[in-house]
Amino acid sequence: MLTSPSMKITFCCTDTKPDLWLSGLQAALPQAEVSLWQPGTPPADHAVVWAPPQQFFDEQTQLKGVFNIGAGVDALLKLRLPPGALVVRLDDAGMSVQMAEYVCHAVIRYFREFEGYALDAKNGKWAYRKSPQRDDFSVGVMGLGVLGERVAKSLRAFEFPVNGWSRSAKTIEGVQSFCGEAQFNEFLSKSQVLVNLLPLTPDTQDLLNRTTLSQLKPGAFVINVARGAHLVEDDLLALLNEGHLAGATLDVFRVEPLPPEHPFWRHPKITVTPHTSARTLRETSIAQIVGKILALEQGAPIAGIVDAVRGY
Amino acid sequence: MLTSPSMKITFCCTDTKPDLWLSGLQAALPQAEVSLWQPGTPPADHAVVWAPPQQFFDEQTQLKGVFNIGAGVDALLKLRLPPGALVVRLDDAGMSVQMAEYVCHAVIRYFREFEGYALDAKNGKWAYRKSPQRDDFSVGVMGLGVLGERVAKSLRAFEFPVNGWSRSAKTIEGVQSFCGEAQFNEFLSKSQVLVNLLPLTPDTQDLLNRTTLSQLKPGAFVINVARGAHLVEDDLLALLNEGHLAGATLDVFRVEPLPPEHPFWRHPKITVTPHTSARTLRETSIAQIVGKILALEQGAPIAGIVDAVRGY
Repeated sequence: MLTSPSMKITFCCTDTKPDLWLSGLQAALPQAEVSLWQPGTPPADHAVVWAPPQQFFDEQTQLKGVFNIGAGVDALLKLRLPPGALVVRLDDAGMSVQMAEYVCHAVIRYFREFEGYALDAKNGKWAYRKSPQRDDFSVGVMGLGVLGERVAKSLRAFEFPVNGWSRSAKTIEGVQSFCGEAQFNEFLSKSQVLVNLLPLTPDTQDLLNRTTLSQLKPGAFVINVARGAHLVEDDLLALLNEGHLAGATLDVFRVEPLPPEHPFWRHPKITVTPHTSARTLRETSIAQIVGKILALEQGAPIAGIVDAVRGY
Repeated sequence: MLTSPSMKITFCCTDTKPDLWLSGLQAALPQAEVSLWQPGTPPADHAVVWAPPQQFFDEQTQLKGVFNIGAGVDALLKLRLPPGALVVRLDDAGMSVQMAEYVCHAVIRYFREFEGYALDAKNGKWAYRKSPQRDDFSVGVMGLGVLGERVAKSLRAFEFPVNGWSRSAKTIEGVQSFCGEAQFNEFLSKSQVLVNLLPLTPDTQDLLNRTTLSQLKPGAFVINVARGAHLVEDDLLALLNEGHLAGATLDVFRVEPLPPEHPFWRHPKITVTPHTSARTLRETSIAQIVGKILALEQGAPIAGIVDAVRGY
């Protein structure tokens, strides 16, 4: 092993059972000291985190690497981080295929009217439902990082027209790309389905609101698998109730868990899932994080370093 | 146009509105005489058919081409056909992407437990459901023709282990192939999901029965998108009720429309759709059939000629 015997790794992940993470990290780095962080834990070299408290970073002042066990680092970047600490997110680690599954399932469900068929079946009704033309069923994917690109390609395999929108121009085969504020309206106006996979930053917060969602094609569907704070919830509800939007599939919410009294739960046009579109796979993630820790210790380059100014 | 001015085409399709087919065929073959068949219609050169009555073939004795507007020709081959008539099925004509959609939607729905999440949502319950390991969620595709191959490849794109079974050995990248009776049991025993896309022939009728379905992995799912007569319905019900099978998604039935009193409609483990997995797309199909008529008239080879002895 190339690890220094004194290397310390601490684990501080809200809403995550620590035992198998700790044993997995320890097994992969036998010479390291792996600890479950608690107030007073001595300063570590690297941290594996999910939504840690500010106190964590106030005490852990000597971190070289802060490894986030998710794709989005918005919660982390709101905190004051120790100077010199690199924030590193998971590259893919099995999440992109899950995201492609989740989004394709939702898009096909809408396109093929499987919810309508399920209702018919309850009534013993044998009747065809005329699907829309595939060429009219354009899907717009916002955010073309690792997850967005995978989702866009998966949708193309089902021959949907796919448009992509991102901050800087991206080239994905078969996908028409739009970029920046200047092309946002055109992108929206072409979308029968809008899939949000953007990082949450000050620029993208509240980006899905009445003004933007009104520009989607009439009868459009919204799929939000990024962050709840991208979406102005009341605006979505209004556009669904007014009929401009036909449905929404939401995996993320401004408050999670979604409170039991929230109107999304039982809205007939909204499908709610409990932030499960792309779960972190522990074994794959541990292998990836350990590989990056070893690379950092050797001064080798690693992927997934977050640009704190850009926000992702 | 290369068509002979006297070429006659007749249309005889049960359960199909004829007007747009007739006008589409006529527009594509302006010099032909296109008719809606009825008893006494003079003998035509080519026929476009779906489930015609025996009387149709008894009268239409000079047919060179019989173009079936579906992928399965089992209903046609039960009839006495005029000697010399070639039976031609649709090659793909937009059906394979629909089939891939239908099957991927069903497999993902099972794998990701979206039905369970929908139940949870009705109760305002925010709770993760642990998915099975993807590597354990093997999908077995029976029938590796145009539709089966597309389905198998689509499932591979979601990284499921995919096995295929067909009469003769097929090679599809990433798919483990099994063939013939000798390898059938091994194929079944590896399947957590069984997808049936076989042609219906005397050899494959009733092939999904208690003996074969019992060999699937415990908790397996069955997706039948081929023909109702492949499946012994009471055997499926028994295995679902005994718990060996966890669910079935059925698009085809021994009697269609599925009678309102049939137990499949409201069985909690069965999803019923009304033979809608891959609809014939009229415009694409007309273009394909017209192309083949013109080729046949010129003596050129065409794809999709059915081997009546083999049955597909």
